[in-house]
Amino acid sequence: MSSMKQIVQCVPNFSEGRDLKKIEKIVEPFRAKDGVKLLDYQNDEDHNRAVVTVVGAPEPLKEAIVAAMGVAIEVIDMRLHQGQHPRMGATDVVPFIPVKNVTPQEAVEISKDVAGKVAGEYNLPVFLYEKSAASPARQNLANIRKGQFEGMAEKISLPQWKPDYGPAEIHPSAGVTAIGARMPLVAYNVNLDTDNFEIADRIAKQVRHLSGGLRYCKGIGIELKDRGIVQVSMNMTDYTKTALYRVFELIKIEARRYGVNVVGSEVIGLVPMEALIDTAAYYLGLEGFSMEQVLEARIYE
Amino acid sequence: MSSMKQIVQCVPNFSEGRDLKKIEKIVEPFRAKDGVKLLDYQNDEDHNRAVVTVVGAPEPLKEAIVAAMGVAIEVIDMRLHQGQHPRMGATDVVPFIPVKNVTPQEAVEISKDVAGKVAGEYNLPVFLYEKSAASPARQNLANIRKGQFEGMAEKISLPQWKPDYGPAEIHPSAGVTAIGARMPLVAYNVNLDTDNFEIADRIAKQVRHLSGGLRYCKGIGIELKDRGIVQVSMNMTDYTKTALYRVFELIKIEARRYGVNVVGSEVIGLVPMEALIDTAAYYLGLEGFSMEQVLEARIYE
Repeated sequence: MSSMKQIVQCVPNFSEGRDLKKIEKIVEPFRAKDGVKLLDYQNDEDHNRAVVTVVGAPEPLKEAIVAAMGVAIEVIDMRLHQGQHPRMGATDVVPFIPVKNVTPQEAVEISKDVAGKVAGEYNLPVFLYEKSAASPARQNLANIRKGQFEGMAEKISLPQWKPDYGPAEIHPSAGVTAIGARMPLVAYNVNLDTDNFEIADRIAKQVRHLSGGLRYCKGIGIELKDRGIVQVSMNMTDYTKTALYRVFELIKIEARRYGVNVVGSEVIGLVPMEALIDTAAYYLGLEGFSMEQVLEARIYE
Repeated sequence: MSSMKQIVQCVPNFSEGRDLKKIEKIVEPFRAKDGVKLLDYQNDEDHNRAVVTVVGAPEPLKEAIVAAMGVAIEVIDMRLHQGQHPRMGATDVVPFIPVKNVTPQEAVEISKDVAGKVAGEYNLPVFLYEKSAASPARQNLANIRKGQFEGMAEKISLPQWKPDYGPAEIHPSAGVTAIGARMPLVAYNVNLDTDNFEIADRIAKQVRHLSGGLRYCKGIGIELKDRGIVQVSMNMTDYTKTALYRVFELIKIEARRYGVNVVGSEVIGLVPMEALIDTAAYYLGLEGFSMEQVLEARIYE
């Protein structure tokens, strides 16, 4: 219960989704570290990938992720890696997310510290992405990762793909890693009372940024075959700027065009408290409300 | 960041609202104690009363409140006390409120432990109230406090007002104290676009428990003269059973009868995260949502 404790979240993706013993070794540095808390880790065998969710104070979190990346380099050989998910390194991508008393800019600094450290210690090439990117072309992870591990040896020898840290040649077994700061991502889906996929697909295109919609919304239409309905499945990439209630109300408005109704919505995985409290404040028309009035925010500040 | 930490809130009311040095002495045990956090304390000169908000783990919180009550007995003399707010003791009332990983029943046990302790150490008569009350007649603090300090010497000599702990005679300078467990209270007001007090008064009567409304809602109509509007001013005494959105929507429905509209609402003071997240879940029609998905709930569990 100390004052103004800083908390950062980190969601590293490792290219190992089948050998549970190796995954345990990789997450061990997060378990062992004071000031760091391992919230979750999940492996996907088809993707051959593990996604770890960890929070902590900046300094111990930085030390723990550097150590975990060291273990990943020891136990993963990308030359033997096969899986459905695009990937380019043993530690594929390391996003840092501000949670409490941390500015986005501080999260960028944390990502750069870690990039410098792992480049030096492990001779690993690192690209900075998202908010940490040195240029617009490097903001999008998909751009960086295009060509994947197999194409990366050639790609990073090109002047325009010189890594931000480390050598301009891949680590022979561990490839390259992208590290950066981003805002919390909320996986948010809205369900429609129709089985017509076309309608979900069109509404997704209407509300997402890519095709004319809200700035921090990515989305696609999907079918929920077991329920006989369709869904607009979204990633909200900055809920502080594109609020959940805004996309929910917008989908209700678009649905009218097709004579269908919104029947509910769902949040997948973790969601920051503020994303939902802001939604409550909108619907109740709360006047003069501050997050400082939330009991839990006061208890843990 | 340990696992399953228990947190209880305590909001003791002390009968001193004018002498800031005395108030500082009273709150000192909350500052000094590991595992306890003093969130807020406010004095009211007209009421001649101080309200303290403190949270902590059960054991250190119990020790700190016993110590603070000891200081209150030293520095407050009820024979000299005057103020607008009804009161019966140097420490007038001590509610314990479950916040995290604490059941209402555990909060009752905590209140009884403290009642036994202060009765023994300070020879102070204590009434258990709210969820800790031994009989329905003692649930309501107003019932217990009727007669106030001046009438209490005679009242507690009556068999039906024998205290739950301590002697059946008042502490000469510190009077008597009520201690109990209750649910978090949310002060919630809804604003109407009229200056007609009568409408706020009638809607308050329609939505509050006392006169036919929702079980855990107390309310009155008030005028906001500077804004030229009226307000339904409420205390929601158990948001887990009477949700904020329910009373908000009900007031909108009642307002139609008078041709007026709800223009907004406000939360006064602290509100538990869950009260607002439950509201967001209602308006978004969230399916399968669990509080375990709230990042902050996971970080601090």
